Amino acid sequence: MTSEKGLSVVMAGCVEALREMDDLHVVLVGDPARLDPEMARQPRRDRMSLHPASQVIGMDEEPGQAFKSKKDASVSVALRLVAEGKVQAAVSPGNTGASVVAATLTLGRLQGIRRPAILMTMPHGQGYTCVLDGGAVVDCKPEDLCQFGVMASLYVEKVMGKPAPRVGLLSIGEEEIKGNEQSHAAFQLLKNAGLNFIGNVEGGDLFNGGCDVAVCDGFVGNIVLKTAEGLARMIREELKKSIRAGNLLVRLGGLLSRSAFNDAARRINPDEYGGAVLLGVQGNFIIAHGSANEVAIKNAVRLAHTCASQDFVAKLGRRVASSEPAAR
Amino acid sequence: MTSEKGLSVVMAGCVEALREMDDLHVVLVGDPARLDPEMARQPRRDRMSLHPASQVIGMDEEPGQAFKSKKDASVSVALRLVAEGKVQAAVSPGNTGASVVAATLTLGRLQGIRRPAILMTMPHGQGYTCVLDGGAVVDCKPEDLCQFGVMASLYVEKVMGKPAPRVGLLSIGEEEIKGNEQSHAAFQLLKNAGLNFIGNVEGGDLFNGGCDVAVCDGFVGNIVLKTAEGLARMIREELKKSIRAGNLLVRLGGLLSRSAFNDAARRINPDEYGGAVLLGVQGNFIIAHGSANEVAIKNAVRLAHTCASQDFVAKLGRRVASSEPAAR
Repeated sequence: MTSEKGLSVVMAGCVEALREMDDLHVVLVGDPARLDPEMARQPRRDRMSLHPASQVIGMDEEPGQAFKSKKDASVSVALRLVAEGKVQAAVSPGNTGASVVAATLTLGRLQGIRRPAILMTMPHGQGYTCVLDGGAVVDCKPEDLCQFGVMASLYVEKVMGKPAPRVGLLSIGEEEIKGNEQSHAAFQLLKNAGLNFIGNVEGGDLFNGGCDVAVCDGFVGNIVLKTAEGLARMIREELKKSIRAGNLLVRLGGLLSRSAFNDAARRINPDEYGGAVLLGVQGNFIIAHGSANEVAIKNAVRLAHTCASQDFVAKLGRRVASSEPAAR
Repeated sequence: MTSEKGLSVVMAGCVEALREMDDLHVVLVGDPARLDPEMARQPRRDRMSLHPASQVIGMDEEPGQAFKSKKDASVSVALRLVAEGKVQAAVSPGNTGASVVAATLTLGRLQGIRRPAILMTMPHGQGYTCVLDGGAVVDCKPEDLCQFGVMASLYVEKVMGKPAPRVGLLSIGEEEIKGNEQSHAAFQLLKNAGLNFIGNVEGGDLFNGGCDVAVCDGFVGNIVLKTAEGLARMIREELKKSIRAGNLLVRLGGLLSRSAFNDAARRINPDEYGGAVLLGVQGNFIIAHGSANEVAIKNAVRLAHTCASQDFVAKLGRRVASSEPAAR
């Protein structure tokens, strides 16, 4: 119900996900009066069902307030289905802040988790760099940052299937002495957390495959995400503008090479990953862009499916609960 | 002496600057044995001179240590020429940290300035967004952030010639409640600093002309800068890769539209601005990239010339010294 693109886009994404995954069942949570007619038209109707929710949290609502006043909001209802074990994962395209609040309060934190955090994935053509936190925890203690590293490392290992993930601390220079008070303290903790900790990484390392995980607080992480989105948009616009302003041959060239543009755009399109994962709560929860298109919705559902199949939350719970440092 | 590209590139940039600006005189600071033969070959030899310096601070040296142990480092000698009034501005392509230390200790802070800060300019096709601080002050008090806003606003007004600069606070949402402890406190100070303060801005606003100045601490600013550089590099590489991997028509299209690419690249090339300005010290000082090419060196010299012509440091001194809030 929260998608900015409307129900038909969400529905199309779900249908595509059902086509790709045979053992998937999708429960759509929202207003039956609007969902029923949409669903009736779908080809995979047999593996879709509907769960009613009468309210919607808008993109601009204040998260805590909205969660408290709208008990029957679609995101809260979906999360209650997760908490009750009726579904194995939830996906919500919409208000990120409200999603974090609703998930933290509905699912609860895993034992031993200090602060649930948002794992974002930044594409770099050959893969992804995970950035944690993407905006859930804006004022972090060094201990929070260290735990982000532990959570993200396990995620890359278990969900992305990459052994011994290289965990870096996002800072302003590679040397250990570079950074601020917070990062200096976090550096010492991460060094002794039993991770494959590679030290400080810089902003540029997010896009060159220099690390698998970059740890930062949610203030920095969110600014980095928005900076990257804004710059990518600007570059695309400026390129288009230059081609449109060119002579006939330049415009022809733009036309001929368009498929290469699209190829590159697809390789580095964050939508291809599907969404952000909220790590540290007792359940699988994927936060998709409010403006997620069909492909992004499909990939978000796929990601939810993967997290559930891997039983990631249970693994994370065991890792954090054990007093042992995370295995190398 | 500190350029990674070598003396001939620096020299070519200076010659180009001399060609563009009739009232410019360039003093090259460094090893006469290496500079003399280079200079002898130059067409504008009459408006160039040489000042000897026997040492160089390398890119990887620890700033404070390097400044202390190398009294005759080229950057320190150049800054002493500024302090003694023998030149009106200095430009240094090289170790940014050492440049900040050397400038702060050699030139001294302007009275009333809490912490000198690095003003970076991010291009967005239609102009520039100034981001302050770019890495000089990693642990900021809200008062520091507010003063960054005052300094950058005056810079945009006097050096860039844009009246009533729109000053934003870099945060994670437009609403006043969005942000962390530090940004909340800075928001209140900026609101009452007599600036054209437009409230919080987000990472994406750095590239859409949404503000003229974005205020942040040096930890965030440096990460934003490196993120932008890394992403732009990655996009360029991925586009090239896609075109090279395409069929004959795609590759032909890439060739035909190359001029459009180059056009766009030039519009959004940070080198076109010339460098970062260290604001808050008693003298004009431009920090160029260690890997600055000829065009970047030329533009850094041009920027130094503009700062000196505008007598910016004196204006900033008066603004800060006056107990009056900055004029709207």
